[in-house]
Amino acid sequence: MKHTGRHFNGKHVLNKQDVTNILANVRVVLSHTSHPGNIGAAARAMKTMGLEQLYLINPLKFPNHQADVMAVSAIDVLERAVVCSSLDEALQGTVLVAGLSARVRDISQEVLAPRVAMPLLAQQAQQHPVALLFGTEMSGLTNDELARCQFMVNIPTNPDYSSLNLASAVQLISYELRLAAGLGNIEAPEVVPAPAEQVERYFVHLEQTLADIGFLQTKHTTKLMHKLRRLYSRARLEQEEVNILRGILSAASEHHAKQQQSKQ
Amino acid sequence: MKHTGRHFNGKHVLNKQDVTNILANVRVVLSHTSHPGNIGAAARAMKTMGLEQLYLINPLKFPNHQADVMAVSAIDVLERAVVCSSLDEALQGTVLVAGLSARVRDISQEVLAPRVAMPLLAQQAQQHPVALLFGTEMSGLTNDELARCQFMVNIPTNPDYSSLNLASAVQLISYELRLAAGLGNIEAPEVVPAPAEQVERYFVHLEQTLADIGFLQTKHTTKLMHKLRRLYSRARLEQEEVNILRGILSAASEHHAKQQQSKQ
Repeated sequence: MKHTGRHFNGKHVLNKQDVTNILANVRVVLSHTSHPGNIGAAARAMKTMGLEQLYLINPLKFPNHQADVMAVSAIDVLERAVVCSSLDEALQGTVLVAGLSARVRDISQEVLAPRVAMPLLAQQAQQHPVALLFGTEMSGLTNDELARCQFMVNIPTNPDYSSLNLASAVQLISYELRLAAGLGNIEAPEVVPAPAEQVERYFVHLEQTLADIGFLQTKHTTKLMHKLRRLYSRARLEQEEVNILRGILSAASEHHAKQQQSKQ
Repeated sequence: MKHTGRHFNGKHVLNKQDVTNILANVRVVLSHTSHPGNIGAAARAMKTMGLEQLYLINPLKFPNHQADVMAVSAIDVLERAVVCSSLDEALQGTVLVAGLSARVRDISQEVLAPRVAMPLLAQQAQQHPVALLFGTEMSGLTNDELARCQFMVNIPTNPDYSSLNLASAVQLISYELRLAAGLGNIEAPEVVPAPAEQVERYFVHLEQTLADIGFLQTKHTTKLMHKLRRLYSRARLEQEEVNILRGILSAASEHHAKQQQSKQ
């Protein structure tokens, strides 16, 4: 696969038509990335969450086959990646810069959790380009890079093992940004619970059938019915399920009645 | 690196002392994983978020060098991984099973977003083992596996490219679970804004100094001071910053006074 990346030419002001949503205004800037595989994996992570603006400051190896392999079908993000030779180039035009940092002890800047920081970034990105700045795999952001960030973002991790892969960090932040942009809805088959009166008729039917088949002992009826109500309430029965269960009750009643008849 | 994984022996009931927190009760079950690198990357993703119980149902290749390489320092999670030959073995003892699914159209089960599902899972895991079930890289969960899940979890993604890497999915879900378990705090240097009266004295000092050096034109004073207040309020000045700024004001006043004297 052949591509060279787009190189910095001092003119990547976003077109009006690009600014159709928040995610189009978010630039992911990877500074001095060592492993091209991480660039590809980051591109894939970005694209799964709807981010597509990748800026690379002096990547060690790019373009690179390993980056392409890891990007899988996000190869277009790599193809459109902007390769820059300085932080100034990568941040040109952005109005807010958030830096990712694993180590926060020595940082005097404000540090925010992703769930606090991404809504701030998303709000600004409604109208203007913003940047997420990621440092190198081994040492993170330099002091000069830190100084250019309005705030830092720290991903909560296991204090005994906080070594997040670069692409994993991009994945988590892109996810939080997608949610902050109001795009966190999932396509899901709705569970539509049946109306109360249908569920109630089921419970009446159930109690009657349990009496018919001789299961209920009168003195325990209330307690047992309470337990069965608890079970089915928790499941939030759908209309079709009420119909199935009542069908079973009818069959049980009929079967019982036939058996009683044949005994007589 | 040599390890064989722990093999299923029908007796991995958690010890009481293991059940010290929610995360220790969460089992990540990977079914029929094709690429050993994904198993290693999943182990690393889990460990960064504090999860350590990895169960593998018939992995294609495990133990495997590529898994070890991708696990980096989460090699201990691989070493303690439980290799099972059936879903029954992997789920033994769990009271709640959540299945991950990328495709939700054909699923009739309830599908929840991670931010809704993980609090449910975390609450149950306060007391009992629970499982997160991930299917194969190519085809996800089988119908038999789906049937064993109490609910499905779907990660919100770009509808045009929803192809999350297996380890990325494990990373995102582990992160949401960590936050749901109440372990989402970050270690951060606190910004401690100065008390209101100190900030107010700064504004008085600022206005006085701007008058001293002849910057303020009386008719615009109110408007200009309002703009400067807006700027510094947004920054939430710390006490040390107030001291620095007032030091600069004092220096400016003195410098101006000296210049005035030398002119006379």
